[in-house]
Amino acid sequence: MKALVLEKRGVLSLRDVEIEEKVGPADVRVALHTVGVCGSDIHYYTHGSIGPFVVKAPMILGHEASGTVVEVGAEVRNLAVGDRVCMEPGIPDPMSRASLGGMYNLDPSVVFWATPPVHGVTRESVVHPAAFTFRIPEGVGFGEAAMVEPLAVGLHAVKKAAVAPGDVAVVLGAGTIGMVTALAAVAVGCSRVYVTDILKAKLEIAGGYESVVPIDVTAEEAAERVRSDTDGWGADVVFEASGNEQAAASVFDYSCPGGTVVLIGMPLRPVPMDIVSAQAKEARIETIFRYANVYPRALALLGSGKIDLKPLITETFRFDESVAAYEYAAQPKPTSVKTQIRVAESAQS
Amino acid sequence: MKALVLEKRGVLSLRDVEIEEKVGPADVRVALHTVGVCGSDIHYYTHGSIGPFVVKAPMILGHEASGTVVEVGAEVRNLAVGDRVCMEPGIPDPMSRASLGGMYNLDPSVVFWATPPVHGVTRESVVHPAAFTFRIPEGVGFGEAAMVEPLAVGLHAVKKAAVAPGDVAVVLGAGTIGMVTALAAVAVGCSRVYVTDILKAKLEIAGGYESVVPIDVTAEEAAERVRSDTDGWGADVVFEASGNEQAAASVFDYSCPGGTVVLIGMPLRPVPMDIVSAQAKEARIETIFRYANVYPRALALLGSGKIDLKPLITETFRFDESVAAYEYAAQPKPTSVKTQIRVAESAQS
Amino acid sequence: MKALVLEKRGVLSLRDVEIEEKVGPADVRVALHTVGVCGSDIHYYTHGSIGPFVVKAPMILGHEASGTVVEVGAEVRNLAVGDRVCMEPGIPDPMSRASLGGMYNLDPSVVFWATPPVHGVTRESVVHPAAFTFRIPEGVGFGEAAMVEPLAVGLHAVKKAAVAPGDVAVVLGAGTIGMVTALAAVAVGCSRVYVTDILKAKLEIAGGYESVVPIDVTAEEAAERVRSDTDGWGADVVFEASGNEQAAASVFDYSCPGGTVVLIGMPLRPVPMDIVSAQAKEARIETIFRYANVYPRALALLGSGKIDLKPLITETFRFDESVAAYEYAAQPKPTSVKTQIRVAESAQS
Amino acid sequence: MKALVLEKRGVLSLRDVEIEEKVGPADVRVALHTVGVCGSDIHYYTHGSIGPFVVKAPMILGHEASGTVVEVGAEVRNLAVGDRVCMEPGIPDPMSRASLGGMYNLDPSVVFWATPPVHGVTRESVVHPAAFTFRIPEGVGFGEAAMVEPLAVGLHAVKKAAVAPGDVAVVLGAGTIGMVTALAAVAVGCSRVYVTDILKAKLEIAGGYESVVPIDVTAEEAAERVRSDTDGWGADVVFEASGNEQAAASVFDYSCPGGTVVLIGMPLRPVPMDIVSAQAKEARIETIFRYANVYPRALALLGSGKIDLKPLITETFRFDESVAAYEYAAQPKPTSVKTQIRVAESAQS
Repeated sequence: MKALVLEKRGVLSLRDVEIEEKVGPADVRVALHTVGVCGSDIHYYTHGSIGPFVVKAPMILGHEASGTVVEVGAEVRNLAVGDRVCMEPGIPDPMSRASLGGMYNLDPSVVFWATPPVHGVTRESVVHPAAFTFRIPEGVGFGEAAMVEPLAVGLHAVKKAAVAPGDVAVVLGAGTIGMVTALAAVAVGCSRVYVTDILKAKLEIAGGYESVVPIDVTAEEAAERVRSDTDGWGADVVFEASGNEQAAASVFDYSCPGGTVVLIGMPLRPVPMDIVSAQAKEARIETIFRYANVYPRALALLGSGKIDLKPLITETFRFDESVAAYEYAAQPKPTSVKTQIRVAESAQS
Repeated sequence: MKALVLEKRGVLSLRDVEIEEKVGPADVRVALHTVGVCGSDIHYYTHGSIGPFVVKAPMILGHEASGTVVEVGAEVRNLAVGDRVCMEPGIPDPMSRASLGGMYNLDPSVVFWATPPVHGVTRESVVHPAAFTFRIPEGVGFGEAAMVEPLAVGLHAVKKAAVAPGDVAVVLGAGTIGMVTALAAVAVGCSRVYVTDILKAKLEIAGGYESVVPIDVTAEEAAERVRSDTDGWGADVVFEASGNEQAAASVFDYSCPGGTVVLIGMPLRPVPMDIVSAQAKEARIETIFRYANVYPRALALLGSGKIDLKPLITETFRFDESVAAYEYAAQPKPTSVKTQIRVAESAQS
Repeated sequence: MKALVLEKRGVLSLRDVEIEEKVGPADVRVALHTVGVCGSDIHYYTHGSIGPFVVKAPMILGHEASGTVVEVGAEVRNLAVGDRVCMEPGIPDPMSRASLGGMYNLDPSVVFWATPPVHGVTRESVVHPAAFTFRIPEGVGFGEAAMVEPLAVGLHAVKKAAVAPGDVAVVLGAGTIGMVTALAAVAVGCSRVYVTDILKAKLEIAGGYESVVPIDVTAEEAAERVRSDTDGWGADVVFEASGNEQAAASVFDYSCPGGTVVLIGMPLRPVPMDIVSAQAKEARIETIFRYANVYPRALALLGSGKIDLKPLITETFRFDESVAAYEYAAQPKPTSVKTQIRVAESAQS
Repeated sequence: MKALVLEKRGVLSLRDVEIEEKVGPADVRVALHTVGVCGSDIHYYTHGSIGPFVVKAPMILGHEASGTVVEVGAEVRNLAVGDRVCMEPGIPDPMSRASLGGMYNLDPSVVFWATPPVHGVTRESVVHPAAFTFRIPEGVGFGEAAMVEPLAVGLHAVKKAAVAPGDVAVVLGAGTIGMVTALAAVAVGCSRVYVTDILKAKLEIAGGYESVVPIDVTAEEAAERVRSDTDGWGADVVFEASGNEQAAASVFDYSCPGGTVVLIGMPLRPVPMDIVSAQAKEARIETIFRYANVYPRALALLGSGKIDLKPLITETFRFDESVAAYEYAAQPKPTSVKTQIRVAESAQS
């Protein structure tokens, strides 16, 4: 089949690959429709590695994916041929200690798409466990469904935050993850979500959503603004979604007494945290690693119309433009949030 | 001042009363604007008592109230004369064991408006602790603010439920409390909320809200419908808001494995609960008693537009029509949800 | 191999059975050492069924088991031949929705020993997944390890209760489950645990444990005693472990404001619950179904000496006395708590 | 009355002071019996300030206190003259937002003993709210009761940790707070608690307690030891109780997947935290500030014998030796944990 292959750092090709995948009794085969380009895909493309994960052999990129079921295993009950679906890209050992404990995302033996040496799915089809393949509700497109992957990160973050009704939240960083976290926070009952960034174009997109208040940190002191808007109390929840070290070091400036901080962004270096400031507010700090048991929840919220991802899908390329899509996404316009590749149309043509 | 007085069971009069209230250092005086008519008010009017609480002397009715600050105590910092406010009607001993533990609603020494022998507030003004008096956000009217009291019950219920993003909920009963619980459930991230009742008029109002699905239990088997819509899994949260014994006995029919039930309605008699059915699903059952620390959250959600109470305010009477308002509310039309009395306009006229 | 077979209701035989079990890559084979006699085993013996589970073909009894690893699968890393182990008797589909969500005990496809038509383990050996097989710490005997199964129920109950440090608890019922629940409650930080029953012999055993206070309900009004000992406040946690309908209906009499009730016992009929009483205290009610992720915790607590199960193992029979063991356990002395069968010694002899 | 007064930095005197305190209706007067010397007392003595809190006028030291009720206010029901009691040293505004929310320890208007300009209680008597004064159970001495203050910190930490039954914990630092945290962790169900330090004398005291395993970090790599003892999994809970920056930076080395860290120690500078390491384990990090609603729980556990503080009270001075007590405590022997002053005996003599 055709696939977008990272041959080695900086070298991409859309070419035929030999992949033979059998549909096991609990599996389905999915014809891909849309695959997003994620920051991690770009990083493998431009750097050839992320931390300990090094691309040593040609690897298909892409893990944000939706498509159509074309074959089902003998024991599969919840899916049928023709179902529109999206897929959770990480498959754990379900009998591991972490998995049995309900945190399969923390199982060290997880096999995750487009993480070397595991192939991703910017390709024509893939075989996947039915338990990690989810029907797309009516009214939700393949593009939005392919964005369930980043949205799942935001929803996992708000689950960990345990947002209470009417909470005021702050999201540091208006990248894709910051955006979906803000949308998730609004969807689960925050009355107001401040999103901070230095890029006006991103803040404008954020500010287009109801209950989202953009703060340009080049123009105003964000923590002071939040405190002043809340009678000096502070934000109930702070989501750090920038990965920026200074931002991460500032989280407790925003917090209210008894407040919660969720660290989503991944700073390159250890961050100097003012523990005494955190203690004065008895801050609870949650950290997250991907997500678990979130996909069906994300799809239900998309289906109900409570989260609208469409404004975040800023560019769509055809499958045969895949290399160009990556070149673009590596140096996107400031107004760009999510670039996707439509695999299916190209396959049809 | 003028007040609506329940002289004794069945006998109401709008008349002058002698109440001298001094504004203490931490108090405010509020000129009432709108006061709702609650089921408990009606019950005192028609029966003269609720359980152990018996009306033995003339008592002013009404505890769902909003108004305008007209005087502030010396130490009050958060409120000023002219502020539009609504008031939490129960004042606990803040040094009690329950209050210090964060559950001031469970303090047995709570003093609650319109619960004998404590006067309610269908009257021109009242003195209240500033700590239990909350500013109404811009864009929210006095009528909606007076409905924060029942809404607080619904929000307290969803807080106890700990709704997870995308949960499917069921609310049994489409009375005022069922309605506000459904709205609260949608606001905090349920993707779909079924509301059951036998009254078509109520179900129509419920069905007018987004993500709310009415079920007429005279026409279809509700639990079966919920199971079938959820691939046999069941509802994540079931709110019993009818007080009906049969409904309360049926809650586990709707529950999913690991699901939650919140018992809001107050059945007159013990309800036969099938404990083994609950165990098979490891159901968690929460019960609630009024609310605590919810008013500011309710107001924030109203202010953000995430909850719209206006369709539930079905009738409004002038202050001088108060007796008629109670006569109506004691035998309302099927389309009636909440009847309110506008105290302020009458006072002005 | 030899096994204790329930041929049909009321008819037991210790005889040879043909069971061929292969050790898969993630399995171990365990030579049984000790197997307890559980109430459910007795019930199948005397009644031939429990609810929908009917013994239609000869079935080996017993699911409370410990033994020694005699063979390990190719991929097993955590266990070795010669390890002393005990085994969790229920194996779920680990890819089911419930299992992935961390509640594998609620997976409807669980395969559980000695639940028709699945064989139990009062036999010489069994093949079991390594993930559900746990090493016994030094200093803990095979008898205690075989009691980890009921202890796991008690620990699951205290986990659900979320005991806070110094809590006062009440356990209704001094049977095996009541006893282990009381021990679990003490181990996790209850400062005092009342255990109620009508049988003096059981109460004496309970009272032999530190921090456990027996209450003979034939001699004193238990709820009054608890309230009076707690300055009228009530118990923080109430565990219903009797299955008795009257006891289950009384749980809220013991509760403090904001208290928790855990329903462990399985009453035969629906129980009339006074919901309004529960609401006045905002009681939280948890129900449990077996346990999940508890075995290693139980073993750690046994190994640390924080829970001592030895006084509860009141009778031990040899394998060749298995039928007599069941006859005894069906009509035990009042001083009897747990009857066990020592399979290994008989096998050796 | 006589009191131990910090005249200014470095200058202490035991002298008469003029303090007139009236017993309000909800207050009691307590004749002090025992008052502990806390690290903060010593710090005010040797440095004259802690952060923003500067000793500008003579101030009585001491806030870890027990004594006997000698007078009760008119409305006090829970205490009587002659009751042996200990007192919570911080009194909040009970109507503040934090207090009503159950976190009165975070109320910025808390008045806390021996925090300038508020007097402490190394003196003959004090008037205190009955709601913050607690009866000492039988069998618990005044010395242990005066140690409830630091123990409350440890118990608050384990409450925040939400220890699960059988958890393995690590406590970094074997000072007073580290010790009481370890005892609290054992009391609430940890199966094993490692305590690390560089001082052998302290580790010996720690190691004298059941289920506590001392680790001398000068002799072995502590995190490696913990991982190796837990089959590579790591500790369920890590309590940082040293305030040492290196220790605080190392917490995630000890953590298991899904583990919890509680930051108790107060490092002088921001600590470089490796957020990505925390995320890989989805660590939850709790911080604490003093305690709330813990005193009665601490006393219940002392009364039940589940926590034994006696080995930690290493030196006791008479009231007339108070200055010497402080001189000693400022430069104690390595075997010293807690120094106390027995006020009552001196008062009697």
